[in-house]
Amino acid sequence: MSSQTIPNGLMQRAYLTPNRVAVETPQTSLTFQELHKRVQKVAQQLSFNGVKQDDTIALYMKNRVEFIEILHAVSYIGARLLLVNTRLTNEEINYQLTDANVSLLIADETFLMREFQSSITQLTLPALKSSPEAETGFQKTWNLEETFTIMYTSGTTGHPKGVLQTYGNHWWSSVGSALNLGLNEKDCWLIAVPLFHISGLSILMRSVFYGMKIILEERFEARAVNEAIENKGVTIISVVTSMLSNMLDELGERKYPHTFRCMLLGGGPAPLTILEACVNKEIPVYQTYGMTETSSQFVTLSPEDSLRKLGSAGKPLFPCAMKIVDEKGNETSEAGEIIVKGPNVTKGYLNKPEATEKALQQGWFYTGDIGKVDEEGFLYVLDRRSDLIISGGENVYPAEIENILLKHPAVKEAGVTGVADEKWGQVPAACIVTKEDVSDEELSLHMQQFLAKYKLPKYFVRVEELPRTASNKIIRRKLSSFIQKGS
Amino acid sequence: MSSQTIPNGLMQRAYLTPNRVAVETPQTSLTFQELHKRVQKVAQQLSFNGVKQDDTIALYMKNRVEFIEILHAVSYIGARLLLVNTRLTNEEINYQLTDANVSLLIADETFLMREFQSSITQLTLPALKSSPEAETGFQKTWNLEETFTIMYTSGTTGHPKGVLQTYGNHWWSSVGSALNLGLNEKDCWLIAVPLFHISGLSILMRSVFYGMKIILEERFEARAVNEAIENKGVTIISVVTSMLSNMLDELGERKYPHTFRCMLLGGGPAPLTILEACVNKEIPVYQTYGMTETSSQFVTLSPEDSLRKLGSAGKPLFPCAMKIVDEKGNETSEAGEIIVKGPNVTKGYLNKPEATEKALQQGWFYTGDIGKVDEEGFLYVLDRRSDLIISGGENVYPAEIENILLKHPAVKEAGVTGVADEKWGQVPAACIVTKEDVSDEELSLHMQQFLAKYKLPKYFVRVEELPRTASNKIIRRKLSSFIQKGS
Repeated sequence: MSSQTIPNGLMQRAYLTPNRVAVETPQTSLTFQELHKRVQKVAQQLSFNGVKQDDTIALYMKNRVEFIEILHAVSYIGARLLLVNTRLTNEEINYQLTDANVSLLIADETFLMREFQSSITQLTLPALKSSPEAETGFQKTWNLEETFTIMYTSGTTGHPKGVLQTYGNHWWSSVGSALNLGLNEKDCWLIAVPLFHISGLSILMRSVFYGMKIILEERFEARAVNEAIENKGVTIISVVTSMLSNMLDELGERKYPHTFRCMLLGGGPAPLTILEACVNKEIPVYQTYGMTETSSQFVTLSPEDSLRKLGSAGKPLFPCAMKIVDEKGNETSEAGEIIVKGPNVTKGYLNKPEATEKALQQGWFYTGDIGKVDEEGFLYVLDRRSDLIISGGENVYPAEIENILLKHPAVKEAGVTGVADEKWGQVPAACIVTKEDVSDEELSLHMQQFLAKYKLPKYFVRVEELPRTASNKIIRRKLSSFIQKGS
Repeated sequence: MSSQTIPNGLMQRAYLTPNRVAVETPQTSLTFQELHKRVQKVAQQLSFNGVKQDDTIALYMKNRVEFIEILHAVSYIGARLLLVNTRLTNEEINYQLTDANVSLLIADETFLMREFQSSITQLTLPALKSSPEAETGFQKTWNLEETFTIMYTSGTTGHPKGVLQTYGNHWWSSVGSALNLGLNEKDCWLIAVPLFHISGLSILMRSVFYGMKIILEERFEARAVNEAIENKGVTIISVVTSMLSNMLDELGERKYPHTFRCMLLGGGPAPLTILEACVNKEIPVYQTYGMTETSSQFVTLSPEDSLRKLGSAGKPLFPCAMKIVDEKGNETSEAGEIIVKGPNVTKGYLNKPEATEKALQQGWFYTGDIGKVDEEGFLYVLDRRSDLIISGGENVYPAEIENILLKHPAVKEAGVTGVADEKWGQVPAACIVTKEDVSDEELSLHMQQFLAKYKLPKYFVRVEELPRTASNKIIRRKLSSFIQKGS
């Protein structure tokens, strides 16, 4: 018996636990059985619109139940789904549609029809939903080696790369997460991150593997999210730092119920100030580290270590391995590149054999991120390599500087990047969102308490908001435009 | 990245959660880190005694911590372990040792040295423990396709067959079980079944995959087991019917704490009377169905169905599929043979290509057991095929008759088998252990209320105890000797 095949996830779930709630939104609630019946219908409507096995179709849609229906319908047909970030420009989307050889783009009716490649058929959701149904065979098993979803990574240079995510990547990611976080039949995972990102998609996959209810929010709003945790039985939520910060502000003096058991915090290194605030409010925060290429979290801090190792991203999930290597590729106990290996790691980038070969060497995926492992094996993510500032030959990590800035009571948000400097090559510059007036001098004095001189920002620029990705990570390379305007 | 490799289970666990308790006995308690260190030493001692990669060694040992150490040490070396049922005769054991080409037998010092094959080196536990340590490389990853353990199935005819259990079989079994039963960091699984059976071994494997504490009992005693559940934080226990029955008797009017969350009941169809008693005492009993060839439970009754489907073994674990087929191999909605498919199913029998080919057809394993699936997909195990009684052309299932006998207040245990009959071919005969005197006439009158005439036992024989396997299943084929003596 090959271990490479499992039953189709939603079909199996509809058989095993048909009456459990699969998804709840403000508008509707569906059991696994009901979702399965809808998905069968959508699969037949897709079939009517020409979608067949091994096709790649694209989805351009906000968070809504129909997103979930189409995702699973694609798996029923045995096709592949490209998940499009709805914030991208036409040019960026066209690149993806062409690169992935997409035959059909399904778009939310709330988005204006945009001028995409004329060769690609566009179908609005209402048009799909009113299509007749055509007979089609259903794929009753999932081959774990087969690609199911494709997501393009933003990429700091060159064209974005299509990350191939197999059924197996999703399965093993879900299993690894459950072995780490535990699993309870009362679990309910709230989604307020985009479904077109791995942070959101991975929760949809876990839902069918675990038989777990999800509550789906169209977008993140601190008040609605807190309300769901307090009154709707949410036990787990995935957040990034800025979301958590807003939730804490909105929460004020209130506390979450004890049934809320996991605040899964991803999307880059978190400031210590936020983590300490969570400890004070008894919020079970789990720092994690992961990326599109690892099908979400790869490293997570276990419950018993959450206080003792504040600021660490933890240890790998059970089926995974991790190493820190120097520039020659040798394992090091110093800071170096984080490389990872495991069945939740992508098999490569679509149509990019060279990028794939560079990123995946002997089964190890080179993340490009910088980290350090302490003597007990805990990972500390220092920075994304692309953001590294080198000043006078010294390595400077923006996150470290941002953390210090955020300790100042007047600073609400901070983003640091390197700007060219005649003397030092690069120097750090800070963009800040302030809560109240504060002088450069005061900020510098504050920072000198904590940081070596070469790490002090040479410029401070006040901005209205920081440029962020859809998943709320700061886009540090975009900070330089503020610096040029402001300085 | 291949999905066929995971980190060595205990090594990974010693890295991820070194300070969690791995195992507790009345004598000792070991963390995963401590267990790992012991296992490294034992592996080096095995190496000194000539054990090397790909060897098969045998273990003849009662439930004790050293059993666990040797099991893992074998995985560190990359060898294979034959687990010997200590209740077997010399002849039966010799057959296994020879068939599996065992190079070394490690035996408990409490067992007398027995006259096994002279060609096989015997080593007592004290001799192993006082051996010097030899350098050996450790196997840091587990290839999921590789055989780790071998267990012989009793088999009703012919020689017993060595069931090959791969690392992957154990891994997928553990994952499937966790997805069904849930997983909590406070979980603690009590082992009072033999470790040389899959029911016990599977808990050892789960312990490392889950990072879960086990409490290990040398043997089953109802009082000690109830005491552990009541006072030692046990959340899950694996039992067979006769154990459960004794536990209920000992428990009397007491109740288990609410933290006790799962009474996993395997080892053959359970009488409804026992299940009803559990419902009355609010014991969360999960009926299961599985076998050596499926690396323990394959079908389990989910929490939400435990009351509504009393007597059913439930539905398959998530990664598994199940069908009922008639004698021509076609799927049927009637009673028929249970066939199963999944990554926890054995890849076959050692040195028995014909038996393997017969049992495994196109990925489906033919269990030889009889079952029926209801309209919602719940499995009811009717009987083991080898026990089927055919009387006057009608199929008669012993378990059905036993259940009815057990409803009579005077009957404590009951076993039914077929005996030859000139007129009908076979007729059912019952062996009973009674609590008080009861006449054949009264028993017959009782049974006529529930059963068609052809199902009524023609003979009733009072016995002191029923013949049972080490895992407490009734050996029905051995009942006939009582019948001949008694009738």
